[in-house]
Amino acid sequence: MSKTKVNDDLQRERDKCTFNVTELINIIDGGIQKTEERKKQEDMVLKEGIHLEQVPSEYLSHKEKYELAVKKACLLFKVIRRMQEEENAGMENYRAVLGGKLGSAILQDGSPLTLHYVMFIPTLMGQASVEQQVHWIGRAFDLNIIGTYAQTELGHGTFIRGLETTATYDPKTKEFVLHSPTLTSYKWWPGGLAHTANYCIVMAQLYTKGQCHGIHPFIVQLRDEETHMPLKGIKIGEIGVKLGMNGTNNGFLGFEQVRIPREHMLMKNSKVLEDGTYVNSPSSKLAYGTMMFVRVVLVTDMCNYMAKAVTIAMRYSAVRRQSQPKPNEPEPQILDYLTQQHKLLIGVASVHAFRLNADWLWNMYNNVTAELDAGDLERLPELHALSCCLKAVSTADAAECVERCRLACGGHGYMLSSNLPSTYGLTTAACTYEGENTVLLLQTARYLVKAWQQAIGGHTLTPTVSYIATVNSGRRLPPWENTIEGIITGFQRVAAGKIGLCVSNIEKRQKTGLSYEDAWNITSVQLASASEAHCRAILLYTYYTETEKLVETVSPALKHVLVQLVDLYVVYWALQRLGDLLRFTSISEKDIDELQKWYEDLLTKLRPNAVGLVDAFDIRDEILRSALGAYDGRVYERLMEEAMKSPLNAEPVNSSFHKYLKPFMQGKL
Amino acid sequence: MSKTKVNDDLQRERDKCTFNVTELINIIDGGIQKTEERKKQEDMVLKEGIHLEQVPSEYLSHKEKYELAVKKACLLFKVIRRMQEEENAGMENYRAVLGGKLGSAILQDGSPLTLHYVMFIPTLMGQASVEQQVHWIGRAFDLNIIGTYAQTELGHGTFIRGLETTATYDPKTKEFVLHSPTLTSYKWWPGGLAHTANYCIVMAQLYTKGQCHGIHPFIVQLRDEETHMPLKGIKIGEIGVKLGMNGTNNGFLGFEQVRIPREHMLMKNSKVLEDGTYVNSPSSKLAYGTMMFVRVVLVTDMCNYMAKAVTIAMRYSAVRRQSQPKPNEPEPQILDYLTQQHKLLIGVASVHAFRLNADWLWNMYNNVTAELDAGDLERLPELHALSCCLKAVSTADAAECVERCRLACGGHGYMLSSNLPSTYGLTTAACTYEGENTVLLLQTARYLVKAWQQAIGGHTLTPTVSYIATVNSGRRLPPWENTIEGIITGFQRVAAGKIGLCVSNIEKRQKTGLSYEDAWNITSVQLASASEAHCRAILLYTYYTETEKLVETVSPALKHVLVQLVDLYVVYWALQRLGDLLRFTSISEKDIDELQKWYEDLLTKLRPNAVGLVDAFDIRDEILRSALGAYDGRVYERLMEEAMKSPLNAEPVNSSFHKYLKPFMQGKL
Repeated sequence: MSKTKVNDDLQRERDKCTFNVTELINIIDGGIQKTEERKKQEDMVLKEGIHLEQVPSEYLSHKEKYELAVKKACLLFKVIRRMQEEENAGMENYRAVLGGKLGSAILQDGSPLTLHYVMFIPTLMGQASVEQQVHWIGRAFDLNIIGTYAQTELGHGTFIRGLETTATYDPKTKEFVLHSPTLTSYKWWPGGLAHTANYCIVMAQLYTKGQCHGIHPFIVQLRDEETHMPLKGIKIGEIGVKLGMNGTNNGFLGFEQVRIPREHMLMKNSKVLEDGTYVNSPSSKLAYGTMMFVRVVLVTDMCNYMAKAVTIAMRYSAVRRQSQPKPNEPEPQILDYLTQQHKLLIGVASVHAFRLNADWLWNMYNNVTAELDAGDLERLPELHALSCCLKAVSTADAAECVERCRLACGGHGYMLSSNLPSTYGLTTAACTYEGENTVLLLQTARYLVKAWQQAIGGHTLTPTVSYIATVNSGRRLPPWENTIEGIITGFQRVAAGKIGLCVSNIEKRQKTGLSYEDAWNITSVQLASASEAHCRAILLYTYYTETEKLVETVSPALKHVLVQLVDLYVVYWALQRLGDLLRFTSISEKDIDELQKWYEDLLTKLRPNAVGLVDAFDIRDEILRSALGAYDGRVYERLMEEAMKSPLNAEPVNSSFHKYLKPFMQGKL
Repeated sequence: MSKTKVNDDLQRERDKCTFNVTELINIIDGGIQKTEERKKQEDMVLKEGIHLEQVPSEYLSHKEKYELAVKKACLLFKVIRRMQEEENAGMENYRAVLGGKLGSAILQDGSPLTLHYVMFIPTLMGQASVEQQVHWIGRAFDLNIIGTYAQTELGHGTFIRGLETTATYDPKTKEFVLHSPTLTSYKWWPGGLAHTANYCIVMAQLYTKGQCHGIHPFIVQLRDEETHMPLKGIKIGEIGVKLGMNGTNNGFLGFEQVRIPREHMLMKNSKVLEDGTYVNSPSSKLAYGTMMFVRVVLVTDMCNYMAKAVTIAMRYSAVRRQSQPKPNEPEPQILDYLTQQHKLLIGVASVHAFRLNADWLWNMYNNVTAELDAGDLERLPELHALSCCLKAVSTADAAECVERCRLACGGHGYMLSSNLPSTYGLTTAACTYEGENTVLLLQTARYLVKAWQQAIGGHTLTPTVSYIATVNSGRRLPPWENTIEGIITGFQRVAAGKIGLCVSNIEKRQKTGLSYEDAWNITSVQLASASEAHCRAILLYTYYTETEKLVETVSPALKHVLVQLVDLYVVYWALQRLGDLLRFTSISEKDIDELQKWYEDLLTKLRPNAVGLVDAFDIRDEILRSALGAYDGRVYERLMEEAMKSPLNAEPVNSSFHKYLKPFMQGKL
């Protein structure tokens, strides 16, 4: 950690922390050894100095930002290539480096090479035949070619079946003809597509022998390997400046009758034979794998963004002083205001809640994938339903958490030097990509409605929805209990109650003559809410039960704090969802009053450990990149230092004075 | 309106609108004549073409953005100067042009001259003595000098008493010595301060004869009028790049023993005589005036931002098609999904709700100001309490509304060419400036707690809190009524109930030995919530009663729709606050079920008028600046046209390929 003098207030916070911060760091990393590995990796990458900038990239033009991002991405991957050779560590390293923390320290506004690793190579591995893998994967791994993945079109995103790009097989030349029949069929959004990649996996509607067989993947060369000029018939460019991620070089791509060899269709699953015969995939559900994998990884990314934001806001709140509630006393640290604790401590608890849920989902993902490989598809729908709602709720909660942290820093949170606006840009993007959140919630709702009907029919339900059967059993439910377990049971009743209401409303509407689809649509605001309630019940239950397991091997001092965080999280959500609890459980006004006091009491108890808890996220200054959040708490000095880096401050008088202001003031403009 | 061919879907929406859009436009403007004036003004300013950009400013570097903003601001004010001369229209014109709509069409990322008009001139008018006004106001009006207003410091914002900059009177030279004793005392944030203004009103702690007399305003020359070089002892520069408003040239300012003549203290209220004697202000409360004025104006700005965002998202939702719920039918417009109507129609209702509340607050402000001038201060605390909570709630609601609209546009809302991200940047900034929202809610809470105690003591309450006395009267309250009036009464009970709980919790905590201040702090999460509940009750009541008056003179077709919007707004908020209603009223599960169906029914009924309702906000394409929201609905064509303006797309191969990518791919980097 940093060696400069630490701000007195921040030092006092650290002195009074009641638990061992290193113990918690190790738990979050997954063990002492993992912490050491992470730190070593950080050292190795950061000592290269690629992250250092004379002029912060935020001051550059859009074009300059891209050029800097290419430079940094190349230098970063050069280091990773070396690390891989030295350690013979395979795929693991670049994933850690690309992921939320270290990668964003160097390419804080996104990297034009990310999709090469995150989508291009994995799709080759998942969808290419063995012969195709032999041909492509070596070149891709060695970065002799740079690829990306083009699915979304200008006119079509989440609804994949609607994609318009066509790939028509011509048996005479044994080629596919790729074509963009409309403006809306132009590929739009893929990272690295604009000016970086020279190859691309393109998802297109496959036509052969006059029949459409749906969306399939094709590998297409976009640019000449020597000159980088776009090939004939390839219409390519960038989509323009965005809210964030301006280093990712998102592009558009249109085809004018572009011919590629038959072998460029990825044929691990479906095939087109030389004569144009289409051979179907053994299991079309296998294609779901990558999408679910990405959603699971996203939950972890969200933890990283939240941890960054809450670290920044918490340390700043320990340093910032404001107002004078008591005459003749100094201005308090703003962290002493209960409203500030309310805004920030829930963020700390959320990081732990989503971290443990992400681990749990990751295990489930691995189990289900193993079952899939053995031909057992039974738990796939449950995993799909879970990954949809957890993706939606984690990204929405994370965006709200980051923005709450930013606003909790007052005006200074609006400065890019706080790093909170960029963190928000990265977080909120995830609410839309990889499946729009409302659409995903409604996908989970379909699963829940089915589960309800199965429960009514007396069928056994899969574990994560088994509570529906309990609530539906007809037995008299026990009364409200004002405990953590009682609240979690209450959330399950809320979810079951909401699903039941949706089912009954859909049925009533069908009886008035509406089609199922129309009845579903008119009920869809309620359905999305039921789906969210289901996800809340899962989140609370998993966070609680996984923490119970975790604290068995933890020191008493730390156990105490981790349990306080679970309590805070559960009670916070109970207070947020009082309307639901009042409708679907027997909670009383007295219970509510007690919950409110319990919550205020928890804030007060966690207050002394507030800074220790964010220190335990162990985000180095180089990764945090925040004038407000640095370990030493030299907030004001750093704000000024950052301001002085502005190119506008390099000259006392800007040229626009002579050109415009002075003539204007003299009435001569 | 635009003359190009309109998208078919959008045209169909317009054809089925049931009311006369022009009638609603005139109502929103305040009459036919006002609509004509506005359009004339828009024509006059836009025909100059200052808003046209070869390369959109978002692609420029930070420095280039500033230089462009200076150029545009000078050209814009040249036009306004001419308009003022031609029409002899005084102050009115520039306020309309600077305000949310027209100003942001030309300077969409803020103007470095705004504070000259919004703070510098008004402060001179409000705080300078007559002699001082003679000396300064002419030069300021003619823009021979450019001023700004410096209050906030690096270490102090909302808590004004804590400001550290000192102005010490030296009777020997009859000068004030301005000084920044610490880094945290540097002025930080004022717009135009960095490189634009050459004069500034500085708020500083006044010391004379060894005594501090608190914060007073001083006018200080910052830069040489000929060379623009900073004067001796003036440390000045810009604070750096921000989430938005990067054309405003926010600056910092430090003083090293800077001497100014005694006459540069603004002396309309308090004075320092030549010998250093301090003469107190007749009424220190008068200084509140400007602050309240700005907060009232802010509510109107919020309406403009919301209207922009909802216009963009609604038109896009009529053009965008997605998914295929029914086999063999075309993909529906996304506006046909109830979840989308749920996200957007509340935005339309919110614009009308806040517009009518802003008008009502504006009238009250004018009445109270007139009473103030007559020496009557009685209603000042009520107005202050109202302006605080309405500022907090309107900015928070507007930010949420704009962001909801952005997310409702999916990925394309993330593009700057949608204009939604910049609109969010402008809106969210208002949550922090002019008083941080949580602090403001707690100021209103102080007033409410006092009102509660007055009610208990049997005193008559001022109109906006009189409901507290009704709830407190001891009479048995009538049961829940599932009507608009019933819901509004319910919200008043919620507010009164929450205030009552806060008072009782503070008292209980005092009895356990806590000081009032500590008891207040531990109750402050509840206090902020009570304050928000009060504001919701005001918003619903005012929107409902003002619409009732308004529709008396409106055509039946339009009246029908305006009443539907009120219903939608009230029922929406009832459903959002079910927990509160269940706690503090006798609402039943059956009532809730009916409210939910009422809400879904209202969405369905308003759906055919959705596009007509945003057309009635009558925001010209040049002002909307959105590829997604233009009047003609050529969404995809415009997205592509905007993308083609990116300087990166001017060359097929970027120089970074030769410099980095190619050597990297060949393993030679």
